[in-house]
Amino acid sequence: MKKIRVFVAGACGKMGQEVIRSILKEDDLLLVGASDTRHQGMDVGFVVGAPRVGVDITGPVESEILRSTQADVLVDFTNPQSVFKNSKIAIMSGVVPVVGTTGLDEAEIAEIQALVKKEKVGAFLAPNFSIGAILMMRFAKEVGKYFPNVDIIELHHDQKLDAPSGTALKTAEGILEVREPMVQGHPNEYEKIPGARGADIGGIHIHSVRLPGLIAHQEVLFGGLGQTLTIRHDAYSRETYMPGVMLSIRKSSDLTELVIGLDNFLD
Amino acid sequence: MKKIRVFVAGACGKMGQEVIRSILKEDDLLLVGASDTRHQGMDVGFVVGAPRVGVDITGPVESEILRSTQADVLVDFTNPQSVFKNSKIAIMSGVVPVVGTTGLDEAEIAEIQALVKKEKVGAFLAPNFSIGAILMMRFAKEVGKYFPNVDIIELHHDQKLDAPSGTALKTAEGILEVREPMVQGHPNEYEKIPGARGADIGGIHIHSVRLPGLIAHQEVLFGGLGQTLTIRHDAYSRETYMPGVMLSIRKSSDLTELVIGLDNFLD
Amino acid sequence: MKKIRVFVAGACGKMGQEVIRSILKEDDLLLVGASDTRHQGMDVGFVVGAPRVGVDITGPVESEILRSTQADVLVDFTNPQSVFKNSKIAIMSGVVPVVGTTGLDEAEIAEIQALVKKEKVGAFLAPNFSIGAILMMRFAKEVGKYFPNVDIIELHHDQKLDAPSGTALKTAEGILEVREPMVQGHPNEYEKIPGARGADIGGIHIHSVRLPGLIAHQEVLFGGLGQTLTIRHDAYSRETYMPGVMLSIRKSSDLTELVIGLDNFLD
Amino acid sequence: MKKIRVFVAGACGKMGQEVIRSILKEDDLLLVGASDTRHQGMDVGFVVGAPRVGVDITGPVESEILRSTQADVLVDFTNPQSVFKNSKIAIMSGVVPVVGTTGLDEAEIAEIQALVKKEKVGAFLAPNFSIGAILMMRFAKEVGKYFPNVDIIELHHDQKLDAPSGTALKTAEGILEVREPMVQGHPNEYEKIPGARGADIGGIHIHSVRLPGLIAHQEVLFGGLGQTLTIRHDAYSRETYMPGVMLSIRKSSDLTELVIGLDNFLD
Repeated sequence: MKKIRVFVAGACGKMGQEVIRSILKEDDLLLVGASDTRHQGMDVGFVVGAPRVGVDITGPVESEILRSTQADVLVDFTNPQSVFKNSKIAIMSGVVPVVGTTGLDEAEIAEIQALVKKEKVGAFLAPNFSIGAILMMRFAKEVGKYFPNVDIIELHHDQKLDAPSGTALKTAEGILEVREPMVQGHPNEYEKIPGARGADIGGIHIHSVRLPGLIAHQEVLFGGLGQTLTIRHDAYSRETYMPGVMLSIRKSSDLTELVIGLDNFLD
Repeated sequence: MKKIRVFVAGACGKMGQEVIRSILKEDDLLLVGASDTRHQGMDVGFVVGAPRVGVDITGPVESEILRSTQADVLVDFTNPQSVFKNSKIAIMSGVVPVVGTTGLDEAEIAEIQALVKKEKVGAFLAPNFSIGAILMMRFAKEVGKYFPNVDIIELHHDQKLDAPSGTALKTAEGILEVREPMVQGHPNEYEKIPGARGADIGGIHIHSVRLPGLIAHQEVLFGGLGQTLTIRHDAYSRETYMPGVMLSIRKSSDLTELVIGLDNFLD
Repeated sequence: MKKIRVFVAGACGKMGQEVIRSILKEDDLLLVGASDTRHQGMDVGFVVGAPRVGVDITGPVESEILRSTQADVLVDFTNPQSVFKNSKIAIMSGVVPVVGTTGLDEAEIAEIQALVKKEKVGAFLAPNFSIGAILMMRFAKEVGKYFPNVDIIELHHDQKLDAPSGTALKTAEGILEVREPMVQGHPNEYEKIPGARGADIGGIHIHSVRLPGLIAHQEVLFGGLGQTLTIRHDAYSRETYMPGVMLSIRKSSDLTELVIGLDNFLD
Repeated sequence: MKKIRVFVAGACGKMGQEVIRSILKEDDLLLVGASDTRHQGMDVGFVVGAPRVGVDITGPVESEILRSTQADVLVDFTNPQSVFKNSKIAIMSGVVPVVGTTGLDEAEIAEIQALVKKEKVGAFLAPNFSIGAILMMRFAKEVGKYFPNVDIIELHHDQKLDAPSGTALKTAEGILEVREPMVQGHPNEYEKIPGARGADIGGIHIHSVRLPGLIAHQEVLFGGLGQTLTIRHDAYSRETYMPGVMLSIRKSSDLTELVIGLDNFLD
């Protein structure tokens, strides 16, 4: 079996390290390069707390390095300042970028799209690599056809600044695409204390719980005649994202188009 | 064993009927009378869907009837217009009122208190007969000493008008009595959509879910270092209240003071 | 709009009554007949606690009655002794049977199948009319592809005799169709008390909780790296099944084949 | 304020490190010594990933070292081979041992008890330092008086070998102390697949879920007429135990008796 050759940009960040640890465990993936602004020249194993790997941390992503490593895929968990440039360099070097870094705007995505077409080299962008969360959103959209009444409860650690979470908003938007416009609850319902009924997005109520101890959890609660159907996802650590990243690497290695969203790689 | 003799006022209402059905199943309780504005003269069994009981529905609660039935306890699930008068008649007739009807104001309660002292006949008032809900509130108050961070999620059918529920408010108030004043969550947290963080009462956030299918549920969620502790009560039907009503009847039968709240009858 | 004409067999049973109450609320459905061994000759409204409907309860299902009512669909919630005969009569009368009664054996189903082909009149059989439970099983099967590790917890009232529930078994069987054969848990795990790890079906563990107060609930709990995904269905009353029955009536009214399972009528 | 002086034995183990990190954050506690078989002579800060602390790791716990550091408390998270000796040395040196290490047998505990009496120096032993778990068990025992029907579901990662968990067994034993002997469930209930109803301890059913992703969770589910009451504890990390260890240090610093169990230090 030919192994998929992977280059990781942002190798010393929390996600980058986790990705490298995961790649090292997979038989069909081969780590061929790693770059970061930190620890340049050191062996990757030192950075991720593993034995010597034989791959040194290099500086900025450049075409020459990518080509010399014969990488198939560039996994990018860098930062909003670097991701656009890195993605273009990858495509022009014949390497498929698998991008987890957020911060690409619409114009940049359009430019990547154009480059993909011109070079006939694919690219993959994902705002969320959690297979569990993606399935939750997919199912929620499916249930919404049969049980239009739904509340979303998302629960996070108390250091999270924004409420509701991006995943909760995206879940609600997905359901709103399939259900008929409607008002939930009794038309005369009222709040004795403002905010009790949560954030209202298109009639769907989202409730944001913030507590120490919690990590990242979401419950989508559908109600119908005499029953409820609940879909819940609990993420306990950064490892949550690894099966999604590994799947993306595999599915992207010979990609020739731009694909956005992990959902496309799930059957 | 001498049975406790019980008179039920509001016998044909939903709660009254349920109370009667429960009394008929208990070996140590004896139904001796039942009153209502409806179905007067009919056998109680007919009203509650049971075989003939031998007790007819009578009209307004009067001292003479109470005395003739030699009732020990008057269970009152009537309405705000009748409950005060009924309670006074009971006490003056030497019968302990067990009151589940809401609507007594402070002046009326004070008057009942005075009457209890004068007549040396007790009275029991309870806003909530659910033993499970009472225990939930008691435990919440206890946990609050160790885990001051708490969010409350209450979930009800979508015909409920007010949010948050009375039980959720009472739970929060109980916790606020024991925990030090504090702000929960990150000081810089913000709502992208108003209401996301729920109703704020003294820094505790309450979230009200309303969906068809749901009945009456509450979850009190405490967060601490690396852990959460959750207390949840699910009420599925009116039967929920019956063990609390039966317990109250037993504990009230020889009461000589005014007692408010089922909590006082739990060890 | 032409209304769908529905005949209900087993009209006075608990499910039959519920079905009739539901049909009476739907604009596109018309109750044209109702049969039962009880209350023959009485108006259906009396039986289900509604105002006069204008349809009397008749005796055994017969071709003549079905034809005279010009029924499109025969909903059967009778008993194992009647369901086979009723279904055949319906098909031969040009009426599509919608069967919720259990007890048809394989030979009988094959005979129905043959009759359907001969008469070119469809038939619909469903062991479960709960849309929520069907979706739960469908999703479970989908998740099993990505998260092969799964435990099932089913929770029912304590009057249920058998454990695990039929739905739990069916859920497990569905997952086993898609996941690779595997052993779950640590190879050296052991039970200090027998039964702790539940019932084992193909490596999936099923846990049956039985408690008063509970109704019918199931949780399918998938575990993966750093995360869990949970699908839970709570059924609180017989009403749970009505949306599924109504959907089946609509989808069956012009059916010309044999269809087994509500899943086929969900997109 | 005089700070409590703490010596940590087993400083380089997972729990020891966590305890040291916690002590360093507390204003009223002072780390005065740390011992381990590993890293002797190195600064404690190096071991726990913190800046220099000024306390070096020393070898075996000895009276001389304890006295020279003027420790008030010896926190012991060593191993079954060392804990008994360490505890005796501490008591004889006038230092209160706070023991989290398991493995003391009855004879050893009796000997510690005798030594405590003789020396008038206290000792504290705890099998579980999780305040949340202790409260869960306490509440469970309280609920058992009112709702005798209970099932316990405990959920752990799939590397756990034994089932049910020690906490589940202890929870059940606590409930059995307060409830009347009884059989739960229907007298005629049967298992279609053995184990479905879980482990039976005195009529209480315990269900052990094992899945990757899970950490350590337990749900105690009480059922009564028309309702359920649930107490759930989720432990997400080793940090869970720290508030209990810190509380124990504070409560033990001037202890003059033997105390067993964190429950004694909660109001």
